[in-house]
Amino acid sequence: MTYAVWGWGGADEEPTAATLADLAPFVADTTGIPVQEPFRPRPLQELPPGRRDLPPSLHALASDDPVDRARHGIGRSYRDLIRAIRGELGSVPDLVLRPRTEQDVVDVLDWAGTSGVPVVPFGGGTSVVGGVEPVGLEGAVSLDLQRLAGLVEVDPTSRAVRLRAGTLGPAAEQALRPHGLTLRFYPQSFERSSIGGWVATRAAGHFSTGPTHIDDLVESVRAVTPTGLWESRRLPASGAGPSPDRVLLGSEGTLGVITEAWLRAQPRPAARWSATLGAPDFLTGAEAVRLLLQSGLAPATCRLVDPGESALTGTLATGEAALVLGFESLSAPVEVDAAAALTLCQDAGLRVVETGSRGSSGDAWRSTFVRAPYLREQLVLLGVLVETFETSVTWDRLPGLVTQVTAAVTDALLRVCGGGRVTCRLTHVYTDGAAPYFTVFAPSRRGSEVAQWDEVKVAAGEAILATGGSITHHHAVGRDHRAGYDRQRPEPFARALAAMKRELDPSGVLNPGVLIGP
Amino acid sequence: MTYAVWGWGGADEEPTAATLADLAPFVADTTGIPVQEPFRPRPLQELPPGRRDLPPSLHALASDDPVDRARHGIGRSYRDLIRAIRGELGSVPDLVLRPRTEQDVVDVLDWAGTSGVPVVPFGGGTSVVGGVEPVGLEGAVSLDLQRLAGLVEVDPTSRAVRLRAGTLGPAAEQALRPHGLTLRFYPQSFERSSIGGWVATRAAGHFSTGPTHIDDLVESVRAVTPTGLWESRRLPASGAGPSPDRVLLGSEGTLGVITEAWLRAQPRPAARWSATLGAPDFLTGAEAVRLLLQSGLAPATCRLVDPGESALTGTLATGEAALVLGFESLSAPVEVDAAAALTLCQDAGLRVVETGSRGSSGDAWRSTFVRAPYLREQLVLLGVLVETFETSVTWDRLPGLVTQVTAAVTDALLRVCGGGRVTCRLTHVYTDGAAPYFTVFAPSRRGSEVAQWDEVKVAAGEAILATGGSITHHHAVGRDHRAGYDRQRPEPFARALAAMKRELDPSGVLNPGVLIGP
Repeated sequence: MTYAVWGWGGADEEPTAATLADLAPFVADTTGIPVQEPFRPRPLQELPPGRRDLPPSLHALASDDPVDRARHGIGRSYRDLIRAIRGELGSVPDLVLRPRTEQDVVDVLDWAGTSGVPVVPFGGGTSVVGGVEPVGLEGAVSLDLQRLAGLVEVDPTSRAVRLRAGTLGPAAEQALRPHGLTLRFYPQSFERSSIGGWVATRAAGHFSTGPTHIDDLVESVRAVTPTGLWESRRLPASGAGPSPDRVLLGSEGTLGVITEAWLRAQPRPAARWSATLGAPDFLTGAEAVRLLLQSGLAPATCRLVDPGESALTGTLATGEAALVLGFESLSAPVEVDAAAALTLCQDAGLRVVETGSRGSSGDAWRSTFVRAPYLREQLVLLGVLVETFETSVTWDRLPGLVTQVTAAVTDALLRVCGGGRVTCRLTHVYTDGAAPYFTVFAPSRRGSEVAQWDEVKVAAGEAILATGGSITHHHAVGRDHRAGYDRQRPEPFARALAAMKRELDPSGVLNPGVLIGP
Repeated sequence: MTYAVWGWGGADEEPTAATLADLAPFVADTTGIPVQEPFRPRPLQELPPGRRDLPPSLHALASDDPVDRARHGIGRSYRDLIRAIRGELGSVPDLVLRPRTEQDVVDVLDWAGTSGVPVVPFGGGTSVVGGVEPVGLEGAVSLDLQRLAGLVEVDPTSRAVRLRAGTLGPAAEQALRPHGLTLRFYPQSFERSSIGGWVATRAAGHFSTGPTHIDDLVESVRAVTPTGLWESRRLPASGAGPSPDRVLLGSEGTLGVITEAWLRAQPRPAARWSATLGAPDFLTGAEAVRLLLQSGLAPATCRLVDPGESALTGTLATGEAALVLGFESLSAPVEVDAAAALTLCQDAGLRVVETGSRGSSGDAWRSTFVRAPYLREQLVLLGVLVETFETSVTWDRLPGLVTQVTAAVTDALLRVCGGGRVTCRLTHVYTDGAAPYFTVFAPSRRGSEVAQWDEVKVAAGEAILATGGSITHHHAVGRDHRAGYDRQRPEPFARALAAMKRELDPSGVLNPGVLIGP
C-alpha cells in the first residue's frame, strides 16, 4: 500500500530497501529481536464504493479517492500500521469531507444528523488508540479539519493565541515565531498532530512537569455541536460552575467538532541546564524522582528510563537506569534549582554522569524524539512487534504497578511471541505520582501480528487496572481502550456523559463507539 | 436574632455594645462612611412548622430546632447578614438532617427522590452567593455534612490525604499536623468552611499563584448521587476522557453530595520571603504584576491593592497602590527569585518599601485575613453596607474592566446610597490574566439595605460581563449569580449540564435553582 496511507512522513521519507538492509543488523544486535525479510507493503484492497447521497452543497468538500479514504481509516498504532502495510484495512470512511469554514462544519453536521451518517472528526490522524477508525460504522464520513488551519489572532498582552483546530504543530510554531512566542507543547506526534486533536484527546507534551498537558494551555474552546455552537469565554481562571472547557477536553470528537482554541503561549526559555544521572535500578531512580518533586523542584525534563531502555537508546551503557534532568527558565537563573536537584539525587543513591548548560542538545533530543515514529515504522517493516502503552499511578502504588505490569507483559510476550522485551520510563511526574510509559519489542509472526499484540495488550491493560493505574495517561481512550475505560470511570459519570451526548448529538452521529454507547 | 444564626464566630465572639462603640469613630474616620446607631438584632420571626413526613429511620438525623433551621437558611453575604439581623429570613429549610454515615446520605436521597423533597447540601454555610438558601423551595431539607468529618487515611508516600466532606479547615489542618503535612489551602472562610464545600464551589485559597484552586489539590472525589455512588480513581493525572472530578468541581450540590475527597498535601515551607512595594497607581502596579508573571516567576503572594484599599488596610499610607509580594519554598532558597522580582518591579516603576525574610508576619497577615468576617459583621451592625465581589479577566481587558466596573459601581452607590467607595485588589494572578476583587463601603438606609445592595450588585455584574470578566472567580454561582452565569456559559454546555442533572437526579431534588433549571 502506498506510503501516503501508512507512513509517518512525506513520500520522500518512505523507507527504502537499502535503509532497511542497513538497519537490520543494528536492530538484531541492540534489541535481540530477530529481524525478518522486509515487509513489502501490499496494494490496497478494492474499497466498497463511497456513499452517493451527499447533497450538492457539500460536494466541494468531499473526496472519495481510495488513498484518501484509506488514510482516514487508520491512526498510527501498531495494529494500524500492520493492517495498512498488509493492505487489509477493515473499516474505512465512505468519504472524506474537508470543511473550509466553520459554516461548512455546521452544514456537514446538519446533513449527517438528518441522514444518520456517522461522522469521525479527524485532525492529524495520529491516534494510537483507534480514535479515527470507523469500526462498525456503516457509511461513515471522516471530517478532516486540515483546511480550518492557521493563526487567527494574537493577544500579546495576555500572551494567548487563537488557533484554528486543523493547525498542525510545526505550522503553529511557525506562525507564532514572528510574535516571539511558542506553545512549548511537543507531543511525540508534534509533526503531524493538530491543535484540535490535542484538545479532543487531552494530549501531553514531552515536558515532565509544569504546564505539559494541553488542558493547562487552554484558555477557551470553540466547537460546533450538532445542536449549536459552543464557545467559552476567554478567562485566565473561573470558578463559575463546572468548567465547560474540561468537558470538551478529552471528549474525543463525541460531543462536538472543535474548530478553534485560545491557548496560552510564552517566549522561548532564556536559560537551560541539563544533566544525566545513573541509578542502580529503576525503582531507586523513581524514589529519587519522588523526593525531587516533593521537595518542590519542578524540572522541565525529568525522564527516568530503566536499564534496558537506557542501553537501547544509548543513554547509558552501564547497565544503570538513567535519569535525564533538565531545568529551564524564562529569566531567573536555573543553577540554584539544578544544584539542589543534584544534591538530592546523590543523597538518594544516584550518581552524576554529566551536567551542563544545555544549548542545542535539548533540541537534538527533541528532534530524535519526534523522529521516533519514522524508526518505528522501519522496525515494523522488519517484522518487529514494536508498540508502547502508558499509564499514571500514585507513588505508593508505582513500584507494584511497574513490577506487575512488566511481569504480566513479559509473560504474555513469551506466551504469544516466544519472547520479547518490555522497557519502562517515567514520562511525566507529579508530587503524588508519575506516568510510567512502556515500550515493547518482540518478534512478530507474519500474518498474526494484530492478534499477537491484541493479546499482549489485554494482559497489559488488566495489570494496569489491577494495580491502580489509569487505562491511559495521554494516549486517549479511542476504541482500543474502551473496555478498560468503562471499568475505570465512575458509573454515574458514564451515565452523565451519555446524557450529555444525547442532548448535544441526539442523532448519535459524532464518533460513535468512542467513550459512550455500545 | 441569636448570634448563632448570623454570626461568624462562637457565642463568646458576639460583638458587644462596647466593642461597637469603640469601633464606630474609627470606622467613620477611615471609611468616611457615617455610622449609625448599632443595629439591635431582632428576634427570629416564628417559623412555619417543619415537615412531618420524615420516615422513622431518618428521625435520628433530624433537627427542627428554629435556630438550627434559621442558621441553615442563610449564608454569609451582606444580604444574608441583614436579613438575619432583622429577623426576616425569607426561606428556611423545614428540617436539618445530619447524616452520620454515607449510607445515611443514600437513605436521605432515596427518601427525598421518592417524596420530591428538595435537598440543599450544607457544608460550613459560608456561601456568599446564596448557595444554601432554599429560595422558593417548598418543604426543603438542609443536608448538613458536619458529622461526616475527619481524616480517614494518609498516603505519606504520595503525600495525599483522604478527608470526609464535612471536615472544616482548622480540623483538617489539625489532623494533618502530626503527619507533617498541610493542605496549604486558606480561603477567607477557612475557619468555618468545609472540604466538601470547597470542592463543590471550586473555592480558592489566598495564595496568588500555583496550586491555589481546590481543583489543583483534588486527586479524587467520592459523592452520593440520587442514582448511585460516584467515586473516581486516585490518579496524579489522567487523559482518559473528560475528567469526572472536573464535573463535580463546581457542581454546587446539584449533581451529588460529596462525601469524601483525596487531596494533595505538602509539608510546611522552609523558606519564606516577603516585600511591600509602592506603585504610583493601580494599573501601573498591575502592569508590573503582569510582567512578573510572564517572566516565569510565581510569587506565592502577589497581592496588589489600590490606593484606597492600601490606606484603609494600613498597608501603605502614602496614597500609593501597594504590592505585597511573597515567595515560599519547601527547600530551595527563595532569594534568587525574590531579587529578580524586585528588579523587575523597580524597572516597571514601583518602589520597594520593605523586604525581608518572613517569619511570623505572614501568619499574622493570614490571621487578619481570616478575621475579616468578624470585623465585617461589626460594620454591618453599625449601618455600613459592606460587601465584596470578584471576577477574573485576561490582561488585555483588565484595565478596561477595573476602570468601568469601578465607575459603574461608584455611580450606582451615588444613586442608591448617596455615596460610598469601591476599592480593588488583585487576589490571584496568572500569565494570561488576573482576578480583580472589589470591596464596597457605603452608607445603608435602614430597612432598604438588601434592595440597595441588589441594585448595586446588578450594576457590578453588568459591567463585569460587558468588559469580558467572569461572573465569579472563586465565590461560586449560587442563586445570586445565576442570571450572569446563564449569560456567560456556552449555551450547549448549559443544556449538557441540565442533561447530566436529569440523568443523575431524575427527581430534581438536589439544590434546585442552582446552576440548572428554572
